[in-house]
Amino acid sequence: METTQIKFYYKNVMAEVLGKEYGITKGQFDELAKMTTPLIERLNSERKAGKVRYRDLPYQSDTVEDVKKIAGEVKGCENFVVLGIGGSALGNIALQTALNPYMYNLDEKQRKGPRLFVFDNVDPQQIKSFLDWAGDKLDRTIFNVISKSGRTAETAAQFLTVCGLIEQRIGKDKLKERIIATTDAKGGTLRKITKQFGFRNLQVPDGVGGRFSVLSAVGLLSAAVCGINIEQLLAGAAKMDKKVSLEDFYQNPAAVNAAINWHYYNIGKRISVMMPYSFALKDFADWYRQLWAESLGKAKDLTGSDVFVGPTPIKALGATDQHSQVQLYREGPNDKLFTFLSVQDFGTDVEIGKAPDIAPELGYLSGQKMSRLINNEKTATEYALLASKRPCLTVAFDKIDPYTVGQFIYLFETATSIAGLLFNIDAYDQPAVELGKDATLALMGNSDYAQLAEKIKPFEQMDSRFII
Amino acid sequence: METTQIKFYYKNVMAEVLGKEYGITKGQFDELAKMTTPLIERLNSERKAGKVRYRDLPYQSDTVEDVKKIAGEVKGCENFVVLGIGGSALGNIALQTALNPYMYNLDEKQRKGPRLFVFDNVDPQQIKSFLDWAGDKLDRTIFNVISKSGRTAETAAQFLTVCGLIEQRIGKDKLKERIIATTDAKGGTLRKITKQFGFRNLQVPDGVGGRFSVLSAVGLLSAAVCGINIEQLLAGAAKMDKKVSLEDFYQNPAAVNAAINWHYYNIGKRISVMMPYSFALKDFADWYRQLWAESLGKAKDLTGSDVFVGPTPIKALGATDQHSQVQLYREGPNDKLFTFLSVQDFGTDVEIGKAPDIAPELGYLSGQKMSRLINNEKTATEYALLASKRPCLTVAFDKIDPYTVGQFIYLFETATSIAGLLFNIDAYDQPAVELGKDATLALMGNSDYAQLAEKIKPFEQMDSRFII
Repeated sequence: METTQIKFYYKNVMAEVLGKEYGITKGQFDELAKMTTPLIERLNSERKAGKVRYRDLPYQSDTVEDVKKIAGEVKGCENFVVLGIGGSALGNIALQTALNPYMYNLDEKQRKGPRLFVFDNVDPQQIKSFLDWAGDKLDRTIFNVISKSGRTAETAAQFLTVCGLIEQRIGKDKLKERIIATTDAKGGTLRKITKQFGFRNLQVPDGVGGRFSVLSAVGLLSAAVCGINIEQLLAGAAKMDKKVSLEDFYQNPAAVNAAINWHYYNIGKRISVMMPYSFALKDFADWYRQLWAESLGKAKDLTGSDVFVGPTPIKALGATDQHSQVQLYREGPNDKLFTFLSVQDFGTDVEIGKAPDIAPELGYLSGQKMSRLINNEKTATEYALLASKRPCLTVAFDKIDPYTVGQFIYLFETATSIAGLLFNIDAYDQPAVELGKDATLALMGNSDYAQLAEKIKPFEQMDSRFII
Repeated sequence: METTQIKFYYKNVMAEVLGKEYGITKGQFDELAKMTTPLIERLNSERKAGKVRYRDLPYQSDTVEDVKKIAGEVKGCENFVVLGIGGSALGNIALQTALNPYMYNLDEKQRKGPRLFVFDNVDPQQIKSFLDWAGDKLDRTIFNVISKSGRTAETAAQFLTVCGLIEQRIGKDKLKERIIATTDAKGGTLRKITKQFGFRNLQVPDGVGGRFSVLSAVGLLSAAVCGINIEQLLAGAAKMDKKVSLEDFYQNPAAVNAAINWHYYNIGKRISVMMPYSFALKDFADWYRQLWAESLGKAKDLTGSDVFVGPTPIKALGATDQHSQVQLYREGPNDKLFTFLSVQDFGTDVEIGKAPDIAPELGYLSGQKMSRLINNEKTATEYALLASKRPCLTVAFDKIDPYTVGQFIYLFETATSIAGLLFNIDAYDQPAVELGKDATLALMGNSDYAQLAEKIKPFEQMDSRFII
């Protein structure tokens, strides 16, 4: 497994393919190198100074031991349920979709661990449907609640609901056995509760934001429980660490990726489409969507000036979205940069059946491998986009395995950091989400927010003049 | 059921909320009315002239009878599998997610029909995983292949593969029993095959493009098989038909919606985010994404001039994406128009458990309804977006049921037609997808496309100078 790689391919954004008007010339690329090189150096020294903590996650062997110990204890359960949202869910979902079979939850022959569910919402219909099913299986179900503070409203609501159900159905004394908490090492609401009830627990590492936390205990436990090789995942990340630390811009895929994205943003391509040609990778496009949006979407730069900056990431799926989005991608405004994810070896294949004699027009498909079809569709779509002068990047996976997935995660995390430096913004905060959180507390009747509740009132009721 | 409604709410795009710089003034709104009214009239007369065929789908009682007959024959099967892509899949998926329980496929107590699978891709890992599971259940599985022509590469590849498997595992004589074809009434590859093998079959109606076909046999069969009341669905659409045919702009929600979208596109908000606060409605955001992108993303207007126009639709999900996208939505470029979908009555609810005494900071959640939480989160997020001067529309569902879902579908289809007239483009074609289709045929070795294959060659191999 250790030889599989991902490759970053950027020819199809260059002027030699797209022409000078739409592509990046050699001169522009060298300018980007000049601009970006000092930022790689800056990131490397900030990292050495302990200010970029996610960069050290591939080397946390203590965490791996802790995770494996707990995973070993619980992996005999039937159902493993993650309660978390945002960075406490997207990575878990992405790892599962990427590295376990499509029918994992439905086909016990295809799985090496319990069924996995990740609840990252507070939808009453969805949760009710799940609890109706799981209600009589609670003694075979483990819940992993993930929250650094324990105060995230959605996660807290789910956690309290599940605790209530466990108490009611199988008894309060079972809480300790059914719940694993992944939370702050020392303080906070969930740590407090964990101590009182004696939950098994893991740590959300200090200084690592949710969206950079997939390689910590946050993402690793559910993966390990479901049979994913987490050492290989971290080894892949460590391998990529070497590449993305290189201070030679031209050899550093994170730097080149960040610089190309920044360049195109500045010339008006403010939408960044990630389009895997692989169902398994589709939820990594969703993971990337949080990473990119929350890190780079900022009103102020580091000098405090208003900038209202940030590319809008879009998740798409090949070949499916050829029949949904490609019409727009080719003929709509030329305002998008495309990043394809492609897979050379799917590790398995399907042979397409023989066309009936009556339909010779389908003969070109007879007996072909399905992998050839999907990969040709990627090439074909990229060709069509290039014909319309749309820039295209590709991340090519030799194979989808923990080792390449680890590389991918670390590549895009580091690219996000470098892009943050190019945009000159703080890539690690998320100040704009606070108002919505406070407003929710106010609307739920939390008396500390009574003043805000008053302010919201005029917006709360629909005004009949504007209803059709 | 017949009294449930959806309401279109547009106050939070108006200047009285957002101010004159960001909102629509009364004067501007009246201008939009003046511009749009003749287009409503034009659409109505085109419809009367038989040129807007999807508008008549709510009244196809013959189709309903045909669909119900076949559904009645097969609904005892264990698994129902749709083979289709784009418009032959998105509507089916959206109806299922909206109108059946979250655990439908996993919990037999929660379903009134067979498990449903919709394959809209040619991913070898995904299909292999499914066929490994389904291979010994083929005699309890029905496949509904949906393609107007039968030549769509992805659908044809799946169909041939499934036929091959059925022949091999349970015998060629079972094809007739296991396959239902939904295809062109008279001609085309799939109709030809259907006749030869004697498949049960339904019609893709003439003059209705894939993305407008959910209310035809294309979308109705899988829905009916899975216990969805398709008469109510069509009754809802028919109810909305009355509203969206009104030539008084101010009373017509499709016209007002189209006009607001067009207005904001023209002043630089080229991204249109649809964000349901309901897991059940999330796949309707994906359905909308095709409808909007493929209909409005056009290089040329009706006079043949280059325009490269079209809003980019984005699907998001509340409350989940508050922890992923809202940072960007509030602080990034003010280039988006938001359309929330909200649900007043979820038809069920979950009571949040009691916070432990040690965590009084979670007390505000104790014993609350989860529906109240998710709806307050919508209000809170909208409030925060308005504070950042971002325009917000809402489609409010009294309840999610076939009657309101039918209304929703018809509202957005008609809004798409009117938006097409405002943009002065052909909303019903998709010329840009042809090159990619041809390129796929060329790459698969179809000899009719040998010349194109030569042209693609230079792009096919990765150029090592641009790989990191």
